[in-house]
Amino acid sequence: MSKKIKLGILGGGGDSLIGVLHRIASTMYDKYELIGGVFNPEIEESIKFAAEIGIGTDRIYKDLDHLISEEKKLPEEERIQVISVLTPNFLHFPMAKSLLENGFNVICEKPLTTTYEEAKILEKTLEKANTVFAVTYTYTGYPMVRQMRNLIADDRLGKIQKVDVQYYQGWINPIIHDEEKRANTWRLQPEKAGISCCIGDIGTHAFDMIEYVSGLEVKKVLADLNYLYEDNKLDIDGTILLRFSEYVKGVIRTSQIATAEENNLTVAIYGEKAGLKWEQENPNYLYLIEDGEPVKVLKPGHEYNGKLSLDGTKLPPGHPEGIFDSMGNIYKGVARAVNGEEYDPGEFPTLKDGKRGMNFIEKAVESHQKGNIWVEIDE
Amino acid sequence: MSKKIKLGILGGGGDSLIGVLHRIASTMYDKYELIGGVFNPEIEESIKFAAEIGIGTDRIYKDLDHLISEEKKLPEEERIQVISVLTPNFLHFPMAKSLLENGFNVICEKPLTTTYEEAKILEKTLEKANTVFAVTYTYTGYPMVRQMRNLIADDRLGKIQKVDVQYYQGWINPIIHDEEKRANTWRLQPEKAGISCCIGDIGTHAFDMIEYVSGLEVKKVLADLNYLYEDNKLDIDGTILLRFSEYVKGVIRTSQIATAEENNLTVAIYGEKAGLKWEQENPNYLYLIEDGEPVKVLKPGHEYNGKLSLDGTKLPPGHPEGIFDSMGNIYKGVARAVNGEEYDPGEFPTLKDGKRGMNFIEKAVESHQKGNIWVEIDE
Amino acid sequence: MSKKIKLGILGGGGDSLIGVLHRIASTMYDKYELIGGVFNPEIEESIKFAAEIGIGTDRIYKDLDHLISEEKKLPEEERIQVISVLTPNFLHFPMAKSLLENGFNVICEKPLTTTYEEAKILEKTLEKANTVFAVTYTYTGYPMVRQMRNLIADDRLGKIQKVDVQYYQGWINPIIHDEEKRANTWRLQPEKAGISCCIGDIGTHAFDMIEYVSGLEVKKVLADLNYLYEDNKLDIDGTILLRFSEYVKGVIRTSQIATAEENNLTVAIYGEKAGLKWEQENPNYLYLIEDGEPVKVLKPGHEYNGKLSLDGTKLPPGHPEGIFDSMGNIYKGVARAVNGEEYDPGEFPTLKDGKRGMNFIEKAVESHQKGNIWVEIDE
Amino acid sequence: MSKKIKLGILGGGGDSLIGVLHRIASTMYDKYELIGGVFNPEIEESIKFAAEIGIGTDRIYKDLDHLISEEKKLPEEERIQVISVLTPNFLHFPMAKSLLENGFNVICEKPLTTTYEEAKILEKTLEKANTVFAVTYTYTGYPMVRQMRNLIADDRLGKIQKVDVQYYQGWINPIIHDEEKRANTWRLQPEKAGISCCIGDIGTHAFDMIEYVSGLEVKKVLADLNYLYEDNKLDIDGTILLRFSEYVKGVIRTSQIATAEENNLTVAIYGEKAGLKWEQENPNYLYLIEDGEPVKVLKPGHEYNGKLSLDGTKLPPGHPEGIFDSMGNIYKGVARAVNGEEYDPGEFPTLKDGKRGMNFIEKAVESHQKGNIWVEIDE
Repeated sequence: MSKKIKLGILGGGGDSLIGVLHRIASTMYDKYELIGGVFNPEIEESIKFAAEIGIGTDRIYKDLDHLISEEKKLPEEERIQVISVLTPNFLHFPMAKSLLENGFNVICEKPLTTTYEEAKILEKTLEKANTVFAVTYTYTGYPMVRQMRNLIADDRLGKIQKVDVQYYQGWINPIIHDEEKRANTWRLQPEKAGISCCIGDIGTHAFDMIEYVSGLEVKKVLADLNYLYEDNKLDIDGTILLRFSEYVKGVIRTSQIATAEENNLTVAIYGEKAGLKWEQENPNYLYLIEDGEPVKVLKPGHEYNGKLSLDGTKLPPGHPEGIFDSMGNIYKGVARAVNGEEYDPGEFPTLKDGKRGMNFIEKAVESHQKGNIWVEIDE
Repeated sequence: MSKKIKLGILGGGGDSLIGVLHRIASTMYDKYELIGGVFNPEIEESIKFAAEIGIGTDRIYKDLDHLISEEKKLPEEERIQVISVLTPNFLHFPMAKSLLENGFNVICEKPLTTTYEEAKILEKTLEKANTVFAVTYTYTGYPMVRQMRNLIADDRLGKIQKVDVQYYQGWINPIIHDEEKRANTWRLQPEKAGISCCIGDIGTHAFDMIEYVSGLEVKKVLADLNYLYEDNKLDIDGTILLRFSEYVKGVIRTSQIATAEENNLTVAIYGEKAGLKWEQENPNYLYLIEDGEPVKVLKPGHEYNGKLSLDGTKLPPGHPEGIFDSMGNIYKGVARAVNGEEYDPGEFPTLKDGKRGMNFIEKAVESHQKGNIWVEIDE
Repeated sequence: MSKKIKLGILGGGGDSLIGVLHRIASTMYDKYELIGGVFNPEIEESIKFAAEIGIGTDRIYKDLDHLISEEKKLPEEERIQVISVLTPNFLHFPMAKSLLENGFNVICEKPLTTTYEEAKILEKTLEKANTVFAVTYTYTGYPMVRQMRNLIADDRLGKIQKVDVQYYQGWINPIIHDEEKRANTWRLQPEKAGISCCIGDIGTHAFDMIEYVSGLEVKKVLADLNYLYEDNKLDIDGTILLRFSEYVKGVIRTSQIATAEENNLTVAIYGEKAGLKWEQENPNYLYLIEDGEPVKVLKPGHEYNGKLSLDGTKLPPGHPEGIFDSMGNIYKGVARAVNGEEYDPGEFPTLKDGKRGMNFIEKAVESHQKGNIWVEIDE
Repeated sequence: MSKKIKLGILGGGGDSLIGVLHRIASTMYDKYELIGGVFNPEIEESIKFAAEIGIGTDRIYKDLDHLISEEKKLPEEERIQVISVLTPNFLHFPMAKSLLENGFNVICEKPLTTTYEEAKILEKTLEKANTVFAVTYTYTGYPMVRQMRNLIADDRLGKIQKVDVQYYQGWINPIIHDEEKRANTWRLQPEKAGISCCIGDIGTHAFDMIEYVSGLEVKKVLADLNYLYEDNKLDIDGTILLRFSEYVKGVIRTSQIATAEENNLTVAIYGEKAGLKWEQENPNYLYLIEDGEPVKVLKPGHEYNGKLSLDGTKLPPGHPEGIFDSMGNIYKGVARAVNGEEYDPGEFPTLKDGKRGMNFIEKAVESHQKGNIWVEIDE
């Protein structure tokens, strides 16, 4: 019998792109078997979808409650072990909480919850549950992002003195200038999307990326957000000044009105000894720059990379891997944790990372609303 | 019950990278289920490997003969439908032949065979078998390679007047200068690798790429190969002049001693109206150049791409996909063919493409050995 | 007799790089003849330098006063017409003022003065003098910077909604961490360098670039500067939030501790219809991005560029021109103005641009010192 | 009195781009003063042009004979010392010969002559004259081209094992497909342009570049040229196989029908230890690649560059210099030679380089016409 980890998925049915991403990621290292779940609010749709993706329909459930109660009837070794939560944001919290209370391991899409308060509750729930919990900040799985973390951990940069992360998209540009369209886009409706559009969706990626690669913690933020129209209720652009300590500063620049940008996340970290630069849209190149030295371009799969980075490459140098492979690496890390194998903390972001992300969103919005003042991030 | 296509694999066990590539590719569109095969010459190893990758061991066979005889005992709807042949090159021919004679659909790694003669026999076998047969020139699955084909088919370039394809690697450099190492590398031993190392391994990719994107057929070649040392028996570098017709010329440049190059395959096609340029190591950018116009950089997933290209992208623009995704596209095309669905001939390379590749290898070597003269490619 | 404009230079002797830049720039369009000046505080050094660069020594003067009095004795048609002021910053104001009061045309290095107050006085002096006055924000002379201006003026971007300019250098990194070195670097001494190091030196370039290409005026700034050490008196890094109007925002990011960066000035402007991106270190590529369109890469010398851009290219496409050529274009514009020929206001930055730059420096420092609050720029 | 070298120019009047390039180049290091010459076949035009570029008209001559006879009447220290020959190709030989016979130093545009025979005669003339003679293969003046030469001379690449140089342009594409246009383009008329269009104009640059950076000599060539139409008499495209020795091979790829290419000259040299790659259109980046090492990107002006390279940069890193600066470096080298100062042989190409270029053209055409066979280059 297969020793693969039994995986269930909540959401991700139909044309869901995030569903495709998670399903493929789960197969990449032969470590998961998709068993069932609740792909859709309508069970008929879920069953139809199960057939489409070629899995059995016997463990497709009406809703999460049924999933939990039915799975728990099974002998432990047959039960779904890991559940990926890919539902709309407002469902992350209740679902994840319920899953933890019932002993499941969870892979949760970001943002972790819709409020920081929820995130703190979830953290306590996890403490009791003592299962594995990952938040899919997908970009942390790229080999060259991991190599940034490796190099900084190895003190290759010296004391970090400046951080600059950009996340520019332009997708909302064709929507925002049309009064009707912007009124009818769910991401711009507070009741559906929470208190933030841009910071909540992509600003958090930028924030997590900084803490992931640098090992630093952001202490304070000063945000200037843009709503573009008076009748638009959620931010679609924002620049956020960061303070790590009195003399270590940084900036997050994030936008959904950077017209025609696709998914332009870039990272630049400067230390006393060297700097590092990386771009998500071209993820297989990492630039290491040092005073008076030629620029060094590091690429995946070479032995000069650290262990965490090398673990994230499946083919030899010159065979470009992409975002599916990045997510696949996160799933591999979770598999190791679930199987009780050794793993590096850099292999997947945790609930704590998700919680900090929620705190960041709230503080950035608070800073802006209070007139662009400094606001502290919780420890 | 799953409607997935039942997939078997020959070879690809253990640490095989090509095995990883094919397995992941097969899962990407939820269309295949890996059922079994012969992963290793030793059945114990095969069984062990099956367990490692988490599939059942009941359809792991001792060898191909057993696979065929046992599978044929099963009711047709339960039988393995497609077999991927990932074994060493010299086994491609006998295995593919046997599979065709027994009615299986085949996905075969390149080079198709070890001689052109074998390829011709295989072609006749396929005519009788009338099954689906794909040769995995992996790079043809990239969305922007497909877009080159789209654009050229749509006459966006006008009459093609110049073709230049490069395939540079440096992997053999650390081996070739050491007499002992070069004597003991199987790829340099004619009895194992056939009549060519460089042209056979990567020159064929370049050749196929040209015919795939341009729709042109190479008529004649003049090759200048390099063996670097007198005691080295197979080419490790070669420049091949191409003739498509009296006034349409081209060049393939291929090397394994281009020190420190990884997998640097580039394509440049110039027509009367425009030119196209693409690089495998950075596959998500296609450069369209026209007299007096800004350079246009096309990227995957945009509606300006043709249908064949768009079919090869799973996520929106800005989410880089890579070589696994490219191979996944080839598997998707084969699935459509096997399922009797409509598909574009550009979705996967066929036996005919593999056969032309074999002819090209033999003719290039012949040209070189006869003193760098023009030799005709068969029609 | 030569119809070239008679040029004098103040400063720029010895190993001065800025001297080299201006001298070569002045020759590029055959429009200037270097006649003399005051290259050095010591007249012997000035004379020696004149000999080195191969010009006559009869119009090398002891100081500016002598230059003015002696030149005014000459018949008007023999007199030096344009004086380039390349002296240390604190001398710009008194020298420029004196030159204007005596009817000379002036080309002045940036920053225009050491205080905004001085700049305002200079503006009044110029009003009376009614001569030509240029401030050498060198980067505005690049053909593709001019093309940004062309495209925005032609409404190719629609209403601008976001501006992001970066100017990162790392040159001070090897100095700043050494207490003695940082104490002895003139650029870090307020009595020599004024109230700002980083904003004054490179932030002003960024500020001018924004207004030059966009035609917008910055209304308010909120600055967060970094001094890195308590004993360091001048900023060496700063992020400045910009407000153009309630819903049009931007950011200037500037640093001298972006370790190993050379002269990394980048411009990104996003409008409702399109975006533009440009990098100083690779100045011959301008990226025009539009929703759903291939990225367009514009290059100098093509007819698709506007008149102002085309005027700045001397050779056909494919022959890269650089920073000397950029400065040469500014000199050409000044020559036209001096000769009373028609010229485009985009051909050279004026005293008004220099004055706004001074205002920007003071306001940015004020914003920081008052605790990162919004401060208004004068109209 | 100015100690500048007195420079005369033949040709380069009116709108001549090559004239602009040489004039600016000559000023860059304050080493030349343009005195006069013969800018145009009509002396009225020459005089008019002299006025336009602001030089005196007293040493503008009717033709070369007058220039020589009149200049020789002057005291030696007043005489024009260096003459740049920028006239149409067929005039290079008689003019250069005459200049040498009369003791002038010569800077001659490429191609040196119209036949190899002429080049050999010129070489003998120079032997007697014993003056300085430079051929302006402009691209050899780039700092990063010089750095390639430095690195190879320092054995940083080890034994060279492969050379690949491309020179692709598309300018003739809009001409070549129109029967009338191609009949009326002087570059396609043998009586005006000699025996070759593409190889003669740009192939020679590629050839010289290889020998300049590598220090190797090409021994044999096998050329496949393309004329595209039967009625077209000169090659407009060609691929040339190179033999340096039995096991050291290379290729030159050159085209004027590479549609929409501007001036795409690229160099790739692979040695046993490392490889080097460079592109003319982006000349300030040199890629050094080594097995198992990060790619190193070298840029001008850094101390890690060799002396010859550093001598070719006027500003600090990050201030891009271009093709005028490249030519300026060649002029500087000639000035040193003329002044009897020490200089590096890499500072300017010599008559020998120009002669080898002529030999290369003739041998390439011969190879093609004899049916693409190997032809030897003279020693």
